[in-house]
Amino acid sequence: MKHVISAKQFDLDTLAELFSTAKALKKRLSEQKVVKLAVDRILMTVFLEPSTRTRLSFVYAMKRLGGEVVDFGPEEVTSRAKGETFEDTMRMLDGYAPDVIVLRSREVGAAEKASKIVRCNVINAGDGWNEHPTQALLDVYTIWEQLGRVDGLRIAIMGDLRYGRTPSSLSYLLAKYRDITFHYVAPPQLQIREEVLKEVSHHTVHQHSRLEEIRDEVDVLYVTRLQKERLGDENLYQQLRGSYVVTVDLLKKLKKIPLIMHPLPRVDELPAEVDALPQAKYFQQAENGVYVRAALLTKLLNLDISSLQSS
Amino acid sequence: MKHVISAKQFDLDTLAELFSTAKALKKRLSEQKVVKLAVDRILMTVFLEPSTRTRLSFVYAMKRLGGEVVDFGPEEVTSRAKGETFEDTMRMLDGYAPDVIVLRSREVGAAEKASKIVRCNVINAGDGWNEHPTQALLDVYTIWEQLGRVDGLRIAIMGDLRYGRTPSSLSYLLAKYRDITFHYVAPPQLQIREEVLKEVSHHTVHQHSRLEEIRDEVDVLYVTRLQKERLGDENLYQQLRGSYVVTVDLLKKLKKIPLIMHPLPRVDELPAEVDALPQAKYFQQAENGVYVRAALLTKLLNLDISSLQSS
Amino acid sequence: MKHVISAKQFDLDTLAELFSTAKALKKRLSEQKVVKLAVDRILMTVFLEPSTRTRLSFVYAMKRLGGEVVDFGPEEVTSRAKGETFEDTMRMLDGYAPDVIVLRSREVGAAEKASKIVRCNVINAGDGWNEHPTQALLDVYTIWEQLGRVDGLRIAIMGDLRYGRTPSSLSYLLAKYRDITFHYVAPPQLQIREEVLKEVSHHTVHQHSRLEEIRDEVDVLYVTRLQKERLGDENLYQQLRGSYVVTVDLLKKLKKIPLIMHPLPRVDELPAEVDALPQAKYFQQAENGVYVRAALLTKLLNLDISSLQSS
Repeated sequence: MKHVISAKQFDLDTLAELFSTAKALKKRLSEQKVVKLAVDRILMTVFLEPSTRTRLSFVYAMKRLGGEVVDFGPEEVTSRAKGETFEDTMRMLDGYAPDVIVLRSREVGAAEKASKIVRCNVINAGDGWNEHPTQALLDVYTIWEQLGRVDGLRIAIMGDLRYGRTPSSLSYLLAKYRDITFHYVAPPQLQIREEVLKEVSHHTVHQHSRLEEIRDEVDVLYVTRLQKERLGDENLYQQLRGSYVVTVDLLKKLKKIPLIMHPLPRVDELPAEVDALPQAKYFQQAENGVYVRAALLTKLLNLDISSLQSS
Repeated sequence: MKHVISAKQFDLDTLAELFSTAKALKKRLSEQKVVKLAVDRILMTVFLEPSTRTRLSFVYAMKRLGGEVVDFGPEEVTSRAKGETFEDTMRMLDGYAPDVIVLRSREVGAAEKASKIVRCNVINAGDGWNEHPTQALLDVYTIWEQLGRVDGLRIAIMGDLRYGRTPSSLSYLLAKYRDITFHYVAPPQLQIREEVLKEVSHHTVHQHSRLEEIRDEVDVLYVTRLQKERLGDENLYQQLRGSYVVTVDLLKKLKKIPLIMHPLPRVDELPAEVDALPQAKYFQQAENGVYVRAALLTKLLNLDISSLQSS
Repeated sequence: MKHVISAKQFDLDTLAELFSTAKALKKRLSEQKVVKLAVDRILMTVFLEPSTRTRLSFVYAMKRLGGEVVDFGPEEVTSRAKGETFEDTMRMLDGYAPDVIVLRSREVGAAEKASKIVRCNVINAGDGWNEHPTQALLDVYTIWEQLGRVDGLRIAIMGDLRYGRTPSSLSYLLAKYRDITFHYVAPPQLQIREEVLKEVSHHTVHQHSRLEEIRDEVDVLYVTRLQKERLGDENLYQQLRGSYVVTVDLLKKLKKIPLIMHPLPRVDELPAEVDALPQAKYFQQAENGVYVRAALLTKLLNLDISSLQSS
């Protein structure tokens, strides 16, 4: 594995190995701040679209492995603002010889394009509405950690399924496992894309326009934010934001309150009252991002993780 | 001491200990760039309001202790811009496990709020017009360093006393010592707030509208900037800025030229001609910020400072 | 050598020494990511004008020498925005005791001004239209690396010679060598400045308004970008941008296709089709920036480079 471009690229063995490393790192990093596995390695963050969580999560993952981080800088203060092409920017960065580039872009396919230009590893940290594979890794890791298994999972994925890259990547990754039941919950204009449905077609798939329509028990409810910045239409946004609010009341109407996950940041769709439920797992999920991304870095950079096994 | 929220929280023993550590660090850091006391510890800077001095001062303090720094990033490129609440941002950061969060916010009480959410240490690096306790620490350290004592101090504090957080925190901290004489110099609409007057009421307190009104000798003149960004009213700003200029001429009219301090940045209120006076101490004051903040970090993070004593 | 302000300040011995160190570093850094020569040293980047390449190139140079980097932050989020003078900013930074300040500014002479204020080394990373000496160093290093010599060089420098600081510094540096032939190619309103012509007057100098006018063989064609942000006049920019495009067709009309260099970023003046030519050296040139700047840092900071010689 040289690059991480799509959630589709992972097989079950790789996932098992990554999750096992992530688990060992989580344990070790709860005892010490830094585990020196990536000393003298340089991770470069290139975020051509605003980000906090993913960027900081990679920064902490690398720093807590003892490695270095260089940030490209916000787009508006860089030479991209002078009209440089993406290809030139990548060729320049390649010359500086980072060990790995973590790239976020508004452009679908940007990470893949970058991976064909540079010599180092490339990690897709979100390319437009397309994919966000490391988010899916930490999502599935959290499910595995909480439920002890992924096979047989019954999951409801709710919110902006059309323009959100998180639902796509999560679906692609879960599709690798056995016997998954997907409930996609969204208004018709924001339902999951055809290309995603194709990838999960060997599983059980339901589409709903409202959460209350789900009659069966689900293990996980994965809520996502309506992405104002992708939706474009202000009227549609205002109309939809109110109708996709997961209150405690609504949750109690379900057959069983499922684990509640969210890639964060949340706005209105998940009120703070839900935080008190023992099923609310979104902050653990965010924290797991550090361990899963650190595990991924050990794999991409071929770091020696033998010292983790003794723990 | 887990968090640093207010200058009110310090007692004289803690101040003496901090200043002693700061002095030892200043000596050692004049001989070597880095003293490796904070290796593998991570400080996170979260500046939700522009800052240079305080932010860089903490960055240098941590780096010169051999520690790591992660910056949250400017507010407009972060998920805060997507509408995330302050509470959620703090819970997310908590999951990444920094050792200490240094927080600046426009919101009064933000640092205290953060300290109730996260597990790590929190340092208030300015919350609106309210407080800026580490500035007060370096101010009082500089007074102690220059005069050899703080008890019995006669100080004039001048400028925007109402909206400036520096005069409040400085007053709170000086109030801990014995027998302080405060001269608050400001136009009526910018005079020191009632809540601050209450805290210093066991000392001698005078209010003046102009510096020339002070007839007694003062040891320190502490000048502050009119904060255009807090004042709001452009007309008032233009009207006041001219009348609060500390020229060499004005200083010579005082009974004795006092030590001149300023939290910086300065604009018009302290012309460059003053820099040549031996009493001008504001750049030393700024430099001391590194040592005082480093000393504070050794205390909050329980770092082993025994190696400093041998110096 | 304490500061690097102008390309004029270098003599041939210093250049030979720097290039030899840069070559040794290039070899060593191709074998290992980091060579620990600058441990516990702090480089501060102060970019008061947007930059990617130069800034990142210095960051990588310092990090790959095992040193630390502190960034001043973008101008708009710093105290500069509160109206602080340049002098005050520099005196403040001086107090924090970085080992070296790398400064870019829109203001001609800014680095020189800084060098008179601070105690540490200062490197001019571009001061308005005036100079960019480290760019010239990497340019001449690349010529030396590619051709094995600099004496006797025949070079065409093309584009915005008037407002571009790269052509000035490159000319000043090449002027130190023997027997250089300069062909300055630009429209009359963007021709090389008088002050530069004076410095190269002991060499052979030609001015042309179009590349096709050069009848003699040249070894290097150095293309620069029309700098929209300096040109001011949008109409002039639109009129000129089309007529200074170095296509493969145009190159083939020359007596011999020269080495093609460019400080990057490029916009229209150098189409991607040129990249495939073996003579296209601009990406190697950018990469060399890391080694040359690292070599310069070893010299300014008096780092012990004896370990490089054994390689």
